[in-house]
Amino acid sequence: MLEQCITNVRAAVPLVHNITNYVTVNDVANILLACGGSPIMSDEPEDVSDITSICGGLNINIGTLNQHSIEAMFVAGRRANELGHPVLLDPVGAGASALRTNTAVKLMEELKLDAIRGNVSEIKTLALGSGTTKGVDADAADAVTDGNLDAMVRFAKDFAAKAGVIVAITGAIDLVADGNTCYVIRNGRPEMGRITGTGCQLSGMMTAFLVANPDNKLEAAAAAVCAMGLAGETGWSHMRPEDGNSTYRNRIIDAISHMDADTLREGAKYEVR
Amino acid sequence: MLEQCITNVRAAVPLVHNITNYVTVNDVANILLACGGSPIMSDEPEDVSDITSICGGLNINIGTLNQHSIEAMFVAGRRANELGHPVLLDPVGAGASALRTNTAVKLMEELKLDAIRGNVSEIKTLALGSGTTKGVDADAADAVTDGNLDAMVRFAKDFAAKAGVIVAITGAIDLVADGNTCYVIRNGRPEMGRITGTGCQLSGMMTAFLVANPDNKLEAAAAAVCAMGLAGETGWSHMRPEDGNSTYRNRIIDAISHMDADTLREGAKYEVR
Amino acid sequence: MLEQCITNVRAAVPLVHNITNYVTVNDVANILLACGGSPIMSDEPEDVSDITSICGGLNINIGTLNQHSIEAMFVAGRRANELGHPVLLDPVGAGASALRTNTAVKLMEELKLDAIRGNVSEIKTLALGSGTTKGVDADAADAVTDGNLDAMVRFAKDFAAKAGVIVAITGAIDLVADGNTCYVIRNGRPEMGRITGTGCQLSGMMTAFLVANPDNKLEAAAAAVCAMGLAGETGWSHMRPEDGNSTYRNRIIDAISHMDADTLREGAKYEVR
Repeated sequence: MLEQCITNVRAAVPLVHNITNYVTVNDVANILLACGGSPIMSDEPEDVSDITSICGGLNINIGTLNQHSIEAMFVAGRRANELGHPVLLDPVGAGASALRTNTAVKLMEELKLDAIRGNVSEIKTLALGSGTTKGVDADAADAVTDGNLDAMVRFAKDFAAKAGVIVAITGAIDLVADGNTCYVIRNGRPEMGRITGTGCQLSGMMTAFLVANPDNKLEAAAAAVCAMGLAGETGWSHMRPEDGNSTYRNRIIDAISHMDADTLREGAKYEVR
Repeated sequence: MLEQCITNVRAAVPLVHNITNYVTVNDVANILLACGGSPIMSDEPEDVSDITSICGGLNINIGTLNQHSIEAMFVAGRRANELGHPVLLDPVGAGASALRTNTAVKLMEELKLDAIRGNVSEIKTLALGSGTTKGVDADAADAVTDGNLDAMVRFAKDFAAKAGVIVAITGAIDLVADGNTCYVIRNGRPEMGRITGTGCQLSGMMTAFLVANPDNKLEAAAAAVCAMGLAGETGWSHMRPEDGNSTYRNRIIDAISHMDADTLREGAKYEVR
Repeated sequence: MLEQCITNVRAAVPLVHNITNYVTVNDVANILLACGGSPIMSDEPEDVSDITSICGGLNINIGTLNQHSIEAMFVAGRRANELGHPVLLDPVGAGASALRTNTAVKLMEELKLDAIRGNVSEIKTLALGSGTTKGVDADAADAVTDGNLDAMVRFAKDFAAKAGVIVAITGAIDLVADGNTCYVIRNGRPEMGRITGTGCQLSGMMTAFLVANPDNKLEAAAAAVCAMGLAGETGWSHMRPEDGNSTYRNRIIDAISHMDADTLREGAKYEVR
């Protein structure tokens, strides 16, 4: 079932409006193209309403937020809500600063979000009002493990139900949940955490998956997570001894550009709880 | 003749001031270095006059425009005009939002531009006051094809004459025209459209070509278009089965860094109308 | 001795706050991860105090400064000073515009800096109040050579003593000095100057080295310079005939991700004066 989601992205070529950080923005644009979507970036408050209107979905990432881009997030988000477009929030660094935490919380309150994707510390910050985010990385103490998996699945479902969103908590084990169902996904490699932007890329790609699969958003979000992790595995398999972080970054996007329903079906590793 | 243009770039090492979007800015800087130029980026209104003054040309790209960078475009553009520096406009997304369309039109009205490079939908928006830009990509219905080539060559020349610029319309078939002459260029590969930034890179590189070839600007613009397309072909020829979008992006810049008059002469595919 | 510095970085995983330009920011983030550190970027005045507080050091790069980011540099710098965090300044383009020169000078005056890293023209601008910066590249007439080495070592030590910082002047020959001691480093390759961002990357990485080696900051700065140059050599050794600038950029970061105390000890080429 999940594999159909990527086929739908390649067929629909969803145009995604990204208000995202300037650190990983090029990778976000390239992975959106690689998966079959089309990106446009705009963070000027006067520009975003028009831009969102011609797109199919909105990806809001607060990684290098500033006063102008925050205003743009709300303007674009309200317009996307009016149009019924899927809106995703990537709360980068929620818990690491008051501005980030407060902005993410206010976006949750004032917008109708379809999905929130973050690491476990960021999601805990939003769910519990506090977290132990270490910069933009999750705190190891928060990690989803086999030892706390039942509790974390419950946490993900409860937060998803309370917030009325699909929540995607990504890490060594990924959880993608709505209030009733949780995908537990075991694709990916630890080396993905040693390059910047795999989370941001996933958020962009997930938005495209949501746009192209309006009737199966939970499956779409889970498919995007499987695709990203599988690309990390495929990309790693092509690494030569002299290759390192930067080549790995390229190989992940390369793998997405080759991915189709067959490779995703064969490579996806998940259970549904 | 065109091949001399790249030799002149490598000899002159033109310093190009770029006010450009944050999505593809790194690729623009790297391709400017790869072709023999030197980039500097500045978009702060208080900074741009000094920066433009030490450069040889100005590349204005509205891909992620904001209120501050728009102001900087006018300040830098007026200063470049005073100094007689070539100024190029890349109207990214003109037609996709009122702010983009209006900014591009106002830049055309208030500045003396040497060249405008965009996709066909963006150029039609500037020429006709309306367009069907699909985000930052051209609408397929607008595409230059063998079927409408005569009409499009006429359109390009007419717009170039009316606006007093060199116009470069890039797509599957590229047109580079002034009021009298149009280069019809058939270099490139369709896969170039599946990575972000090849257009932005071309605009940066074209500015360097204009600076280094002040007496042959039309040929310089055409040479830059041929060079970019040829790099797309050369880069593609080095792709291995596991390589995808991100590696292709690297291989295009790699190909530019190896390009010289001989390879450009042998590889350029164009006719003059 | 220098090789211990990279071991300490990999053990400490220093979190570095970067206020840096949007041209090379992705490479700065990726090289920080590759060397064993962890990056976070924030340039919003309201955000930076919190972000700096959870980090170990601050890297200030003025490459695409604007009014908001300048304010953020001072806010973050003062907070980092209160906390005793190492602060590094990369005065990109000092000498090329009044705003850049004045901002760099004011940052030197109002903040306690641990290190300044730039090309020779930028450093001369800060030391002498004037320079001949050619855009963001050093003027060839300023270059450190074997012919002027004694004088330049004296210059570096004098500036370091007067400014109370470690000064790193990078180019074909690199100098890393405090008031008493100067490392003269001969790692690197000339091709590194043909890709954008090797200097910015070094500044980010050097900040991580300073954080992880608080009792040996001069050695830490020198070790970062050796590591960057050695990565340029190692990366070059893996280039194939069709590889060019963009692949070289990747291979440098790849080489950093594989570097350890053994490779750094064997490859570092320096003398102490």
